[in-house]
Amino acid sequence: MTSLATFSSVIEVLGIIAFAMSGVFAALEKKLDVFGVLVIAFVTSVGGGTLRDVLIGATPVGWLKDTHTLQIILATTVVTLLLRKRIGNVETTLMVFDALGLGLFTVIGIQKGIAVGLSPGVCVALGTITGCFGGVVRDMMLNHIPRLFHVKELYATTCIVGGTVYFLLSGVLGVEAAQVVAILVISSFRIVSYLRKWHLPGL
Amino acid sequence: MTSLATFSSVIEVLGIIAFAMSGVFAALEKKLDVFGVLVIAFVTSVGGGTLRDVLIGATPVGWLKDTHTLQIILATTVVTLLLRKRIGNVETTLMVFDALGLGLFTVIGIQKGIAVGLSPGVCVALGTITGCFGGVVRDMMLNHIPRLFHVKELYATTCIVGGTVYFLLSGVLGVEAAQVVAILVISSFRIVSYLRKWHLPGL
Amino acid sequence: MTSLATFSSVIEVLGIIAFAMSGVFAALEKKLDVFGVLVIAFVTSVGGGTLRDVLIGATPVGWLKDTHTLQIILATTVVTLLLRKRIGNVETTLMVFDALGLGLFTVIGIQKGIAVGLSPGVCVALGTITGCFGGVVRDMMLNHIPRLFHVKELYATTCIVGGTVYFLLSGVLGVEAAQVVAILVISSFRIVSYLRKWHLPGL
Repeated sequence: MTSLATFSSVIEVLGIIAFAMSGVFAALEKKLDVFGVLVIAFVTSVGGGTLRDVLIGATPVGWLKDTHTLQIILATTVVTLLLRKRIGNVETTLMVFDALGLGLFTVIGIQKGIAVGLSPGVCVALGTITGCFGGVVRDMMLNHIPRLFHVKELYATTCIVGGTVYFLLSGVLGVEAAQVVAILVISSFRIVSYLRKWHLPGL
Repeated sequence: MTSLATFSSVIEVLGIIAFAMSGVFAALEKKLDVFGVLVIAFVTSVGGGTLRDVLIGATPVGWLKDTHTLQIILATTVVTLLLRKRIGNVETTLMVFDALGLGLFTVIGIQKGIAVGLSPGVCVALGTITGCFGGVVRDMMLNHIPRLFHVKELYATTCIVGGTVYFLLSGVLGVEAAQVVAILVISSFRIVSYLRKWHLPGL
Repeated sequence: MTSLATFSSVIEVLGIIAFAMSGVFAALEKKLDVFGVLVIAFVTSVGGGTLRDVLIGATPVGWLKDTHTLQIILATTVVTLLLRKRIGNVETTLMVFDALGLGLFTVIGIQKGIAVGLSPGVCVALGTITGCFGGVVRDMMLNHIPRLFHVKELYATTCIVGGTVYFLLSGVLGVEAAQVVAILVISSFRIVSYLRKWHLPGL
């Protein structure tokens, strides 16, 4: 399945870029300096995968071994800073990349959990951490309560739904088809719930 | 010592439940959504053990391997949310579970430190981290300065006292008796200092 | 090169002490209790090396294996608390220790990265994390946006410059000479930029 591998790599790079851009915009709101913006872009992008790798003991963690990750984030930050006044209304574009990245990161996390022999429920939790934790650290470093915890968006819930779909389908369709379906479910569910403003019930 | 093992398991589950409940109540105060409440319950419950396992390299960390932990926390969160209006005055009950959990978590942390050959002072630090770090992350995620650092309660101090007792007694009484004594010392010292409002000296 | 090793050990201890002192003063500002002050001193001092060790999988992490670290931090905290009213104007002294520690911690981080086969750019990032992350956690625990991200000081930038110098020179001068030069570059650049109030450009 080279084509799936290529597809995954492309989406993963787009996901890294989208997450890094979201970090840059969040950091600019708090008037951080250049270095602060770069760090926030970085933790937003690699935070989820890093926590996952640390929890399962897959060290050195991913971005330490893969030099391209740092370079992509650095380039994204520079370009975003230079173009930030022109990037007026890319919120929707950004959200689409973010949704694709969320789907792929979640499925990658699930795969890594399966590879070390974890049970399905735990794998879904690990996938959700991979997809969501970068944004949580970004918010903690910027002195917010993580957005994920209180704005009632269907963000993490989307990962949980998609992960469940993956395990329901992987026995029937095979691993690779189930991966593609789970990525599509997460991405499209995220996009639709964003556009329609679907929310979690209040407490 | 099957009876000690059983006793430990029961107390550990009660500790997980108590810590998860404390997370739910803290999250509700900040008006988080359902998912946010679940995550805070989760990090409060497993945060200490997770940091300990990561620091000593015991990966995949505990809750990844033991599926029951996630299920217990999920069930505790749901039940606490459903009954939260009836649970008016369980503060004392909760504190007792929390104190028992604190004692057991501390002693488990010390044991894991000994098992990888760490020195006594470091083991006490590791036990204290196991008992206390969940509450620290809970507070950081909710955008508080961790309660542990400034309310002058005898919380972490209790773990340090109990850990010291363990090392003083384990040569004399044997490992298992020393464990039981340390758990009892921590739990009862915590309960008494809570009820009598004992405080650390001011600076 | 025993003399370099001795030199490194002495500077490392001074760095641990300087970082612990900076933690104590930051914690006192927020009126933490005795235990809170000790924890903040501790995370400021060992935070960077701990994250580095966890990321590369060098576990148990350094301070767990080396009992002296805990003892040095404990002694530093007690002495700083006792003498804090007399330590009126040691800001400059503290900054010099901090600058020396920053240089050595960064170079130690780079060495550890090289030892596990990471690429130069990633090693510089790892060195910077080793030098800077303790202060970041200190600020997050005290409910600040990390100072490193927004005051435009040349702090992390200094580590990146020094790390780059190291890789440019190590082929020419050999590893040990390049280490000494990098430590001196970082420390003196930090001291000069502090005294002259050099800043990062605004955004």
